[in-house]
Amino acid sequence: MARLAIAFQGEHGAYSEEAIFKHFGRDVKTVPAGTIHEVFNLTEAGAVDLGVVPVENSVEGSINETYDMLLASSLTVVGEVVLRVVHCLIALPAARLSDIRVVYSHPQALAQCRGFVTSMGLEPVVTYDTAGSVKMIKDERLRKAAAIAGERAAHIYGLKVLKKGIEDYSTNSTRFLIVSREDAKGDHGPDASRGGISRGSKTSLIFAVPHKPGSLYNALEVFARERINLTKIESRPTKERPWEYYFFVDFQGHRQDPKVIRVLSEMAKKTAFLKVLGSYPASKAARS
Amino acid sequence: MARLAIAFQGEHGAYSEEAIFKHFGRDVKTVPAGTIHEVFNLTEAGAVDLGVVPVENSVEGSINETYDMLLASSLTVVGEVVLRVVHCLIALPAARLSDIRVVYSHPQALAQCRGFVTSMGLEPVVTYDTAGSVKMIKDERLRKAAAIAGERAAHIYGLKVLKKGIEDYSTNSTRFLIVSREDAKGDHGPDASRGGISRGSKTSLIFAVPHKPGSLYNALEVFARERINLTKIESRPTKERPWEYYFFVDFQGHRQDPKVIRVLSEMAKKTAFLKVLGSYPASKAARS
Repeated sequence: MARLAIAFQGEHGAYSEEAIFKHFGRDVKTVPAGTIHEVFNLTEAGAVDLGVVPVENSVEGSINETYDMLLASSLTVVGEVVLRVVHCLIALPAARLSDIRVVYSHPQALAQCRGFVTSMGLEPVVTYDTAGSVKMIKDERLRKAAAIAGERAAHIYGLKVLKKGIEDYSTNSTRFLIVSREDAKGDHGPDASRGGISRGSKTSLIFAVPHKPGSLYNALEVFARERINLTKIESRPTKERPWEYYFFVDFQGHRQDPKVIRVLSEMAKKTAFLKVLGSYPASKAARS
Repeated sequence: MARLAIAFQGEHGAYSEEAIFKHFGRDVKTVPAGTIHEVFNLTEAGAVDLGVVPVENSVEGSINETYDMLLASSLTVVGEVVLRVVHCLIALPAARLSDIRVVYSHPQALAQCRGFVTSMGLEPVVTYDTAGSVKMIKDERLRKAAAIAGERAAHIYGLKVLKKGIEDYSTNSTRFLIVSREDAKGDHGPDASRGGISRGSKTSLIFAVPHKPGSLYNALEVFARERINLTKIESRPTKERPWEYYFFVDFQGHRQDPKVIRVLSEMAKKTAFLKVLGSYPASKAARS
């Protein structure tokens, strides 16, 4: 059987690629893409089997580009991966920590190491990717610069880890979603035997409410009545209409669970827009 | 009387400074700061009277740094300003549109002009400020580069507007908050005469709910029961505890309105954390 081809944003060595290996093992073909948008495009076009995109970090919060693409795209969410993100300060093999003046990385990684970067008096410079910053330091032989990226990026490009674990919070984790043209299959819900909720499954959906008082409450009430656990709620602007929002909700259960079927049917009546992104096995690290 | 001193993030000519002039008129002293964090610090320290910070854009959504600082800071929200953001492509006086290869700006501004930048085949480069990018092009005499910023920034630094109105959405607006060491005074609520709600006032608060099913719903139910209109809900990670969140809510009414007093007293019982950021006159442009 051909190996699965899976797209991710960044260069080889990026955290998204690490999330792929964590979830699928090493026997897959990883395909780098310049942007999250491009990961969705490659997957929709069938150029790859799946895409893996970051959706939220435990310190910096949601990745807006991913939320906007989940709304726009026809892809389904078929899984999630939680990765404990250990940032390293990476430089040329001859570099010493005292030489470093400038630090390059993705804005999210710089933000997650804000305390370290400030305490060292380094100048942060924003780039499009963590591993891509390591590659750039190598290609351009930058002697006074370091990159913030994962340890694996240092190995891939033959650079040196000056310091490991420079993230400000020791629990720093990123949650990734796996997107596909087809629905999730396999060893999770629906499971009606435990009160009508598959505890090992999660469902993600997007809705918009009519623009009047109590609308959001009315929509959430449906979940509360069935005692369904919301694990995340996020709002994103509609873009066209200022100060009106789409709400992104993750909750425990499978879209084919009896309780969830009732919830979705009620939600359809109470919302101005409803899109189910998919049901998938919940990562143990994101379960609560 | 001494003129009000008001801090903002960016260089002179930034949109935040435009928001200050729109709200307070020109007879104020505007004080540039490097970061949103610094605007809060200057205001807390009493180095300025007030700070003005962006909180959400109608296309790109919330400004995370502002939300995180509202949580951490002791300042009160005393007002809001909504600014229609018209982006310009700005370059050296001798430059022609066909010369431009690279475009510098704040990540939010680049994102709001993504369609334009892509269609022109320009390379986007992230900087810390819109007006600061204009200044840089002037100082470094960059001939093949342009900045995305407001028209006023072009005038201040003597550069040329190559194209005006390059934002992707014609409704593109940013909402700013005014922060202060003291509570808002003056011509808004409390007003108990119209059903116990000051329609011209807004209140902002932060809460966290106990980590169990239905908690968020239980908190929002308090607003629904009193038929109070939520104008915005935003979640931010707690940072220390992965996948647990603070919720930021804006609603119609003044904290001294009878209905709002009932809501706050109920919320205090149902939440694990509650912080009222302030009550202030609602901007007509953000009222719904």
